[in-house]
Amino acid sequence: MGLIEGVDEATATGEVRALFEEMKRVRGWDRVPVMWRIMALRPAYLRATWEKYKAVMLEGSMDLRTKEMLALTVSMVNRCSYCIDSHSLALRKMGMTDAELMEMMGVIDFFSSTNALTSALKLEFDGPPTTAAARS
Amino acid sequence: MGLIEGVDEATATGEVRALFEEMKRVRGWDRVPVMWRIMALRPAYLRATWEKYKAVMLEGSMDLRTKEMLALTVSMVNRCSYCIDSHSLALRKMGMTDAELMEMMGVIDFFSSTNALTSALKLEFDGPPTTAAARS
Amino acid sequence: MGLIEGVDEATATGEVRALFEEMKRVRGWDRVPVMWRIMALRPAYLRATWEKYKAVMLEGSMDLRTKEMLALTVSMVNRCSYCIDSHSLALRKMGMTDAELMEMMGVIDFFSSTNALTSALKLEFDGPPTTAAARS
Amino acid sequence: MGLIEGVDEATATGEVRALFEEMKRVRGWDRVPVMWRIMALRPAYLRATWEKYKAVMLEGSMDLRTKEMLALTVSMVNRCSYCIDSHSLALRKMGMTDAELMEMMGVIDFFSSTNALTSALKLEFDGPPTTAAARS
Amino acid sequence: MGLIEGVDEATATGEVRALFEEMKRVRGWDRVPVMWRIMALRPAYLRATWEKYKAVMLEGSMDLRTKEMLALTVSMVNRCSYCIDSHSLALRKMGMTDAELMEMMGVIDFFSSTNALTSALKLEFDGPPTTAAARS
Amino acid sequence: MGLIEGVDEATATGEVRALFEEMKRVRGWDRVPVMWRIMALRPAYLRATWEKYKAVMLEGSMDLRTKEMLALTVSMVNRCSYCIDSHSLALRKMGMTDAELMEMMGVIDFFSSTNALTSALKLEFDGPPTTAAARS
Repeated sequence: MGLIEGVDEATATGEVRALFEEMKRVRGWDRVPVMWRIMALRPAYLRATWEKYKAVMLEGSMDLRTKEMLALTVSMVNRCSYCIDSHSLALRKMGMTDAELMEMMGVIDFFSSTNALTSALKLEFDGPPTTAAARS
Repeated sequence: MGLIEGVDEATATGEVRALFEEMKRVRGWDRVPVMWRIMALRPAYLRATWEKYKAVMLEGSMDLRTKEMLALTVSMVNRCSYCIDSHSLALRKMGMTDAELMEMMGVIDFFSSTNALTSALKLEFDGPPTTAAARS
Repeated sequence: MGLIEGVDEATATGEVRALFEEMKRVRGWDRVPVMWRIMALRPAYLRATWEKYKAVMLEGSMDLRTKEMLALTVSMVNRCSYCIDSHSLALRKMGMTDAELMEMMGVIDFFSSTNALTSALKLEFDGPPTTAAARS
Repeated sequence: MGLIEGVDEATATGEVRALFEEMKRVRGWDRVPVMWRIMALRPAYLRATWEKYKAVMLEGSMDLRTKEMLALTVSMVNRCSYCIDSHSLALRKMGMTDAELMEMMGVIDFFSSTNALTSALKLEFDGPPTTAAARS
Repeated sequence: MGLIEGVDEATATGEVRALFEEMKRVRGWDRVPVMWRIMALRPAYLRATWEKYKAVMLEGSMDLRTKEMLALTVSMVNRCSYCIDSHSLALRKMGMTDAELMEMMGVIDFFSSTNALTSALKLEFDGPPTTAAARS
Repeated sequence: MGLIEGVDEATATGEVRALFEEMKRVRGWDRVPVMWRIMALRPAYLRATWEKYKAVMLEGSMDLRTKEMLALTVSMVNRCSYCIDSHSLALRKMGMTDAELMEMMGVIDFFSSTNALTSALKLEFDGPPTTAAARS
């Protein structure tokens, strides 16, 4: 249930109601998830976050499924339970199978181990320069 | 330089030398990066990690570029400097542009914020069940 | 209830009993929370931690409410469930409302995203020097 | 220098230029920091993030100095080097002294240890209920 | 129960069955834990991870109990609930008592706080050089 | 150099001077590391932390070398650069070799990957109960 109660969808009015309607239409939701209803306690915060969502997820050239895979990866590395549920559900709706999820998991598993190794040993990258300044 | 010196490629012998040669051929490397030369201090560890790399990255149906994007995302969320260099370089070799990197970044940025919010407020997922048991 | 059973308040004796009494008086507690009862399994560890608590929270010029807000922020960023409960409760007892909690949350949300972006892109700070040596 | 070059302030045009001007005026900056110039590679992303900044930092009842202290705490717990520089500088401009910074540090130090202890031992909170549902 | 269902031990065949048998014999298990049954969805991934386990845990000169203590420490710092259960159980089977667990916990608690302090203040190590290059 | 300048050892007086002397004697240091000199800006904080160090590291039945290995593991998982330097140096002084460090690293590497896998898939532990309540 969380520390704070969100805005009830049924009683939302004004800008919050309009944003909820837009979200449901754009995202194909039956109802607004609690994360967004919590943000609605501060309408300017809800609007700004939703605008940022659209700028990040709905613009550009990368397909939405790949972006959702990145979002799930972020959530898995951050061990965010709610977010893992939310993004794995979104990906399943897009047709992701257990086999594909396991293929993703292998990558997350493997690079978690190399991340740990190289950070722990304080290794410095020994390939060609990667900074913008050095490449130009 | 790191806390430990790796095995020098020029003086490697036996299994380590053979693994180094295989890695360079499979990955298209001119020389073996320090992370793998460090692992070579324990040959069984090097072999097992390389076998795991192949099982994770070179088998399955997902394309290598998408897997590298997941690897970079893992590394970015883990703030692993060496790994960010290594995977951003790999992606640039596959043709990734600054514009595409920024599109990835927006996703990482946005979901880092929702991860923080939902974990901090201890929100419980309010959508359909996501566990294997509940779905079956 | 956790991996280890703490010291039962009713049967505590000697230094542990005295520390429990002092904690309840200073913190205004009815009973000693499990975290402190666990520490009591090693009395010197309990005493040192309690002394450090007092040095950190009860000395200095910053008000206790602000310090509790920092403590909650630390706990939220660390995704420590017990700690989020403990510090949000402490703040509610000091009068914090849902509206104020949401205002805090917005800050945590926003800077989690900029933290992710700047770390991921390995940006170097481009403002005036911030180290003690450079400032002096 | 970072993985990507940001938009040069001198050559920015249109919406990006207007946003840069607004930021400099509102924040009292001489020049736009690299984080924001990077975001400007995707103007909609820059605008949405700046709008969110204003909703989070410039609205509500909490004073800006307290919010900057929360932002610094988030950045310290996340070990974001750029962000620690940025927010410690902002706080010093608002008059924060070394003594006050050390008082903050003590809080971060202390609760990092209790966070580690309670999470590691999987302790469950044993005080009154904290969820919105249980409190109402 | 997790997002994905693992391979049922009773119906496993071929390489997976052989690996399960080997694991049970080597680890002294009655049944294969869900983590390994999940990996079995991709047999090459299961085999590579098991080979790596053996290279890491069963070779070398350090005793298994010390290695399990390191594994528990990793899991506690990473706040991995499943892993804390798994490694604390393994250590209890090797005779670890509550008193010893609490002695471990004190170390994790204390250095979590100094980690937070030194990273937050961006301290640079002021002792003798630690890199391989500087020491040689 | 860090964000804040510590207390100069040469000019320390009173309790801070006495604590510095005790630390150097107990730890076998030539000079006091910057972390402790920073804490000395608030003498009660320095004293409490040092008392906690002694309670955690110098009491109990576990040998100091094992505790330093746990401390290094904590620091490696937390990616604390200063702390990795400090604890790897302490272990080298106790005779730890590169081969032993690499054996430790293998453990950290391997369990970082299983931590990532089980947390990401939200697996629930399927072995015997581990909580104190369930075991008793």
